[in-house]
Amino acid sequence: MRDAAGNEVDWRNAKSLNPEWRIYARSSGDDKIPIIGMAAALDALRAAGYKPAVNLRFVFEGEEEAGSPHLAAYLAKYPDVLRPDAWILCDGPVHQSRRMQLVFGARGVVDLELTVYGPVKGLHDGHYGNWVPNPIVRLTHLIDSMRDESGRILIAHFYDDVRPSSKAEQDAIAKMPSVETDLKREFGIAATEGEGLPLNEMLMLPALNVRGIQSGHVGALASNTIQTEAQASLDFRLVPAETPESVKTLVEQHIESLGYTIIRTTPDTSTRAAHAKLVKVVWGSGYPPARTPLDLPFSNQIATLMTAAGHDPVRVPTLGGSIPMYLFQQPANTPVLILPIANHDDNQHAANENIRLQNLWDGIDVYVALFEGLK
Amino acid sequence: MRDAAGNEVDWRNAKSLNPEWRIYARSSGDDKIPIIGMAAALDALRAAGYKPAVNLRFVFEGEEEAGSPHLAAYLAKYPDVLRPDAWILCDGPVHQSRRMQLVFGARGVVDLELTVYGPVKGLHDGHYGNWVPNPIVRLTHLIDSMRDESGRILIAHFYDDVRPSSKAEQDAIAKMPSVETDLKREFGIAATEGEGLPLNEMLMLPALNVRGIQSGHVGALASNTIQTEAQASLDFRLVPAETPESVKTLVEQHIESLGYTIIRTTPDTSTRAAHAKLVKVVWGSGYPPARTPLDLPFSNQIATLMTAAGHDPVRVPTLGGSIPMYLFQQPANTPVLILPIANHDDNQHAANENIRLQNLWDGIDVYVALFEGLK
Repeated sequence: MRDAAGNEVDWRNAKSLNPEWRIYARSSGDDKIPIIGMAAALDALRAAGYKPAVNLRFVFEGEEEAGSPHLAAYLAKYPDVLRPDAWILCDGPVHQSRRMQLVFGARGVVDLELTVYGPVKGLHDGHYGNWVPNPIVRLTHLIDSMRDESGRILIAHFYDDVRPSSKAEQDAIAKMPSVETDLKREFGIAATEGEGLPLNEMLMLPALNVRGIQSGHVGALASNTIQTEAQASLDFRLVPAETPESVKTLVEQHIESLGYTIIRTTPDTSTRAAHAKLVKVVWGSGYPPARTPLDLPFSNQIATLMTAAGHDPVRVPTLGGSIPMYLFQQPANTPVLILPIANHDDNQHAANENIRLQNLWDGIDVYVALFEGLK
Repeated sequence: MRDAAGNEVDWRNAKSLNPEWRIYARSSGDDKIPIIGMAAALDALRAAGYKPAVNLRFVFEGEEEAGSPHLAAYLAKYPDVLRPDAWILCDGPVHQSRRMQLVFGARGVVDLELTVYGPVKGLHDGHYGNWVPNPIVRLTHLIDSMRDESGRILIAHFYDDVRPSSKAEQDAIAKMPSVETDLKREFGIAATEGEGLPLNEMLMLPALNVRGIQSGHVGALASNTIQTEAQASLDFRLVPAETPESVKTLVEQHIESLGYTIIRTTPDTSTRAAHAKLVKVVWGSGYPPARTPLDLPFSNQIATLMTAAGHDPVRVPTLGGSIPMYLFQQPANTPVLILPIANHDDNQHAANENIRLQNLWDGIDVYVALFEGLK
């Protein structure tokens, strides 16, 4: 057989394959390729006569893209089998620089919907403007009381539960490839929140995101109306040792400190007429953050084995996004690392999903190094 | 003919008509009835042999509901005819208490659309939240910098142009029937802006209304996204001696003082990447307020004639809403009063629009008193 350039290719010999070639297939990068890589690594070890020094257990969960609705129950059902000394999760991509990465945590999340109220019917804002309360203005002040423009959360005691970064985490962040200049160009932004701190330092902190806000209309559809209500959708990203429950308590104490009465369902007219400041607060689902120390013996051993195999990893103390690492970490505070092998440009979830051959080979190398080297 | 109760009615004798009966017809209250009333008053005066002591000119403008697009040009085109010593406008309803009212002013208006910017594409708010600027948070802070929850406008020098209420205006406001308790019940609100001041005192001040706000989604449609932009629609209600132009200048100086660069069109990526804080400001149409002094001889004469005819008017220094009184007032500062006769519950612009018979009769009485009595 010949490649695109007309050269003879021996498909049984990896050396004759171009490492930049891609295998295109649905789920090739996310999340079939770790399974192929692990199987190849085990075959190679068996062929070479090596045996692992530790017990390896492989868990393949097929519902991750659907929110893993049965994972918690499954882990709880088989505690003897599914409480290992440590977990290595293989989902996700390597670093954008094509260096492998080792991820030690993820932020937790909890979301909420806020609705504040104006008059029970839309009113002419000329006839009543600056006498009838404007619910949009109520809402903007409520949001601003919780967060400044630099990302700092203003809710009392919000940072009391935030664990300071360890020396190892600080060192890892300092060594991460700088992405800020490229990202700012890509995103078309001239300034960032966090008063100039790098992205990965900010991700060690909790975030209050306003995801959506809605009341009345803007532009051509705008009308001279004092609206009946205004809504905002928020989420909090959490870091250790915050929990959805601890954040809910602080947020509601804060809202009440502003004179608001909190309700859970849409109020009727008499409820509205009885309270000067009324807000409907509806919490969505959430889960806590997880973080594995970078300087655990297990963490060091994994990084050392990867480096010895030629793949010194970018050490990432935490993802900014949320994945339910806590399910694997709890209840025994089990170390959990994420070691992805797929290329970052694998078009996951999209057309032309692919795996780059070099990423598969690197993955096999690293899996062999871990399976053979872990003590 | 018989009425609904079966009684014989002589339609030529008003005394046998129930004054609470309504005439239902499209535009009956807004704005045909003043024309009928004036014609009836002139017929009555002629029949009685009276002649006005002043020249009366009647102007009927048929485009008021379409924004009076030709009125300004028309007034300018016939200055000799259309620059009287004073104007009496007859649009609108009487007071909700069914007392007649005499309105001496209206707030002006100018509206604007604000758009602030985040990243050029929606970003995952876990991966980038508290590092990439959140445009909704930018917008809420921008709005809050301009206005507090009590309706006070925080823009520097905003009240410099606001003329204090005269003694006559203060006296009139103190004598206006109190509507606050009823309105709060009707609107389902427990508190008001203005720190407890009555509605009509607040209407003497300018207002900043946020009419609509929009970015992303709320509720079930919300997603974990840092939005690309956030928009708000605002209007200002103006009082003498503010003008749309004076307010535009102050607002833009305020926005720039916060570090924003103001643009007029949607920015491209390189413009966005070049400015830390960018806001698109688009002003809509607007016009100035108008106010006629309550203690002018003409104002006093009208009120005295109404009172003598049995219709002591509620004196309203200004409407909160905006109508282009300034067109009649300018350029010679001509006194302009509004003297409506329609019932407030005439369903104007809606199904079953109607005029209450007593309101028509009261209107004829007052028109006769003015046409005959004005000196």
